[in-house]
Amino acid sequence: MRKVTFRVANSLDGFIARKDGTFDWILGGQEATSIMAEFWKTIDTIVWGRKTYEPVLKSKEPFPTYPGVKNYVFSQTLEEGQNKSTEIIRGDVVEFVRRFKNQKGKGIFVMGGGELARSLLEADLIDEIGLNIHPVLLGSGIPLFLQMKEQINLELLENRTLKNGCVYLLYRVKR
Amino acid sequence: MRKVTFRVANSLDGFIARKDGTFDWILGGQEATSIMAEFWKTIDTIVWGRKTYEPVLKSKEPFPTYPGVKNYVFSQTLEEGQNKSTEIIRGDVVEFVRRFKNQKGKGIFVMGGGELARSLLEADLIDEIGLNIHPVLLGSGIPLFLQMKEQINLELLENRTLKNGCVYLLYRVKR
Repeated sequence: MRKVTFRVANSLDGFIARKDGTFDWILGGQEATSIMAEFWKTIDTIVWGRKTYEPVLKSKEPFPTYPGVKNYVFSQTLEEGQNKSTEIIRGDVVEFVRRFKNQKGKGIFVMGGGELARSLLEADLIDEIGLNIHPVLLGSGIPLFLQMKEQINLELLENRTLKNGCVYLLYRVKR
Repeated sequence: MRKVTFRVANSLDGFIARKDGTFDWILGGQEATSIMAEFWKTIDTIVWGRKTYEPVLKSKEPFPTYPGVKNYVFSQTLEEGQNKSTEIIRGDVVEFVRRFKNQKGKGIFVMGGGELARSLLEADLIDEIGLNIHPVLLGSGIPLFLQMKEQINLELLENRTLKNGCVYLLYRVKR
């Protein structure tokens, strides 16, 4: 079984972006980069949510690629061929991740927002949740966690204070 | 100026109670007790929200009192005289806290939920926010943070991992 990890940066009041999708409030820094560098070594697959993927694709920066890491984006509407390094998947993300999780390989990084996270959490397919909690109340925006049918218990694996005031928390989903 | 602190225990997905108001998921423990014991020394006033106060008043436990600490609850509907140790305030909580903040004295503890917190945050009357983040996604419940008109920047003052898996964060509101 491959490990499936959902990681995201969020505000203390639980938003992952402003209402207009911007995330100018996100703080970078060497520590966050180094936490992610360690994480990239453990994965070979990124599962993108469409709403997270599109702004990255449309930004002026070149689409980020990581050696040995395959990108899949789930969408019923995106056109093929816009980005060579990403495969568009038309089907059900839950079934796809379930199948992938049972294959051999390295970890799977879920790169999306609350909707993708909820689908996969409710299907019990997420193993770890990593949050980089930023020292800000945005007041409004796109929420990180949506309502779910059932409670999910977690185990805290890691808690780090970053120099920029962010708090990096890593949790294991208890089963 | 007296320091006004909003403190609460919450789930990682930002709820302070289940939908029915219960908080059976809250973990106690010596560390949380000792953090609060230090805090009690610094305050002489509790400002209760009505929705937080009523379940405490109605519970089978005796109403908690702390030596030298005055209790005020804001409500337009609660009857007087149910609890000798608490004064019911009919007016506007924002005006009351603003007046109190400018008096001499020890700190003011805001003991309430998202509605009370929002009113006081939007009026720029909260100085510190303390969260005891529990290792659980409740999935639904009474939210800690409600939508606010403006972004509020914070400074992380403290980050402690408790043995029970909770993360205690203390922030200062930046002005």
